[in-house]
Amino acid sequence: MELGVIGLGRMGQIVVNRSLDAGHDVVAFDLSAEATATAAEAGATAADSVADLCDRLDDSDEDGKRIWLMVPAGEPVDATLADLEPHLDADDVVVDGGNSKFQESVRRAEETDAAYLDCGTSGGPASAEEGFSLMIGGPEWAYEALVPIFDAVATGPAGHDRMGESGSGHYVKMVHNGVEYALMQAYGEGFELLTEGRYDLDMESVARTWNNGAVIRSWLLELCEEAFHEEGSDLGDVADHVAGGSTGTWTVREALEQEVPVPIIYQALAERFDSRNEGRFSRRLANRLRYGFGRHEVARRSDEE
Amino acid sequence: MELGVIGLGRMGQIVVNRSLDAGHDVVAFDLSAEATATAAEAGATAADSVADLCDRLDDSDEDGKRIWLMVPAGEPVDATLADLEPHLDADDVVVDGGNSKFQESVRRAEETDAAYLDCGTSGGPASAEEGFSLMIGGPEWAYEALVPIFDAVATGPAGHDRMGESGSGHYVKMVHNGVEYALMQAYGEGFELLTEGRYDLDMESVARTWNNGAVIRSWLLELCEEAFHEEGSDLGDVADHVAGGSTGTWTVREALEQEVPVPIIYQALAERFDSRNEGRFSRRLANRLRYGFGRHEVARRSDEE
Repeated sequence: MELGVIGLGRMGQIVVNRSLDAGHDVVAFDLSAEATATAAEAGATAADSVADLCDRLDDSDEDGKRIWLMVPAGEPVDATLADLEPHLDADDVVVDGGNSKFQESVRRAEETDAAYLDCGTSGGPASAEEGFSLMIGGPEWAYEALVPIFDAVATGPAGHDRMGESGSGHYVKMVHNGVEYALMQAYGEGFELLTEGRYDLDMESVARTWNNGAVIRSWLLELCEEAFHEEGSDLGDVADHVAGGSTGTWTVREALEQEVPVPIIYQALAERFDSRNEGRFSRRLANRLRYGFGRHEVARRSDEE
Repeated sequence: MELGVIGLGRMGQIVVNRSLDAGHDVVAFDLSAEATATAAEAGATAADSVADLCDRLDDSDEDGKRIWLMVPAGEPVDATLADLEPHLDADDVVVDGGNSKFQESVRRAEETDAAYLDCGTSGGPASAEEGFSLMIGGPEWAYEALVPIFDAVATGPAGHDRMGESGSGHYVKMVHNGVEYALMQAYGEGFELLTEGRYDLDMESVARTWNNGAVIRSWLLELCEEAFHEEGSDLGDVADHVAGGSTGTWTVREALEQEVPVPIIYQALAERFDSRNEGRFSRRLANRLRYGFGRHEVARRSDEE
């Protein structure tokens, strides 16, 4: 079948390439002409605007247009939809494969003339070969219409499913990311304890041994093994502040709203905030309070410089 | 080569079977004659006591005896070692494949005439087919001497390694289990939020979609998928109190001793204690305090019956 792809960063290019490899036709557009050219070299038809992309999509048969957005979450999605809107009918299907807030996907599905599928996409650039995990929300007919594309972009038929109505795809992806934070923190605490602990251990050996048959084996643990292999047992010069946090924050907010306790997802998010927060005020106050009640010496910033 | 196996529960039988399958000779003993008979049916030579097992192990060549203990952690290991001790020389090797405390393994290694290998074993009965992950501590020569057996019992050469000196195998296994608690809690929180959340989701579909290409894919997540498949999306009549906790407790104690913060491993352990603690005193006190300062009505136990 024929697919339009808008947004040709690392993830969008993978959507293009995996669709082409499965024998589909792709019309591709990105604000960067260079990114569009890359897709064209891979075999896609280049479009030089959203309108041009819509024109080039074959509308002659009874099926409508199928368009995959792989643009950054937030305003770029709305901007692209505004450009698309004049060209969309009720038999068209738009897929948002980005990390959008599920509430925004619900709103967009209501505002758009086309059928709107919110598609949580996991696996990242590392999944170019194996394919993604796709968690999809929206009208059932639209999901069914896109199955040949989902089969190609995902790991296969088992790598995608319709979770439920609009928003459910990005909802499940949001929770996925909250779990991801906690898993990362779990491995992090374990390897930190082993590093600071009683034995002089080779962390790559530990990770490899665990990845072969242990209960905690996982893809993230394979990435730990790769990291120790490439950076060394002590992780060399890798810094200790960690970026990101939006989907984890959404997960914790939703858990508060639903009154579901998620203590370790919250703790993993807090650790990430902590990592970026130099000179924690709470610790400085603790330092001063120990002086207050016990006359313990107050460490002062100038002492450490 | 020839291996004596003492302790023929589910795990011990797997050690027997995988060793036999790899072409090794096995002499097997368990306090239960039935368990010993099961091993004999699989092709092992049955022994009717620890002393008999030692007699039957061929001591004619230059190599000493190789004996694998797969008895419950704690006193049974010491009792077995006491029975073995009169038969052990410095060229013998004893492997403790159970979930022993690393400090006890260090002590036993010092007290035993034989070379002593502490072997953390992960994978559980589910690993009968694929093989275990083996984390091994102790003298290098003894580890090397047992490699053919470890190759057979583990998933293969990648599934075992010598972590370091005595105790390091069980130390790494202890931390493995601490991480395992946190991973279980992470998945648990995610699926609980999805269950209590805004969409009516099929948890088996969520788990399957995640297991195919998502960042959080893992063996534990495959076990979640299996659980939802077998028990239903709401887990049917599965109770909400969770047993176990010893290795998690050891991990947190060691982290306290090393002054390494392991907040989510601790939280996961606390959740497990919490699950077994009906009528939490802290909650009852909170209930009463809300009355104290705000005259909020006190829910009382008789109201709920």
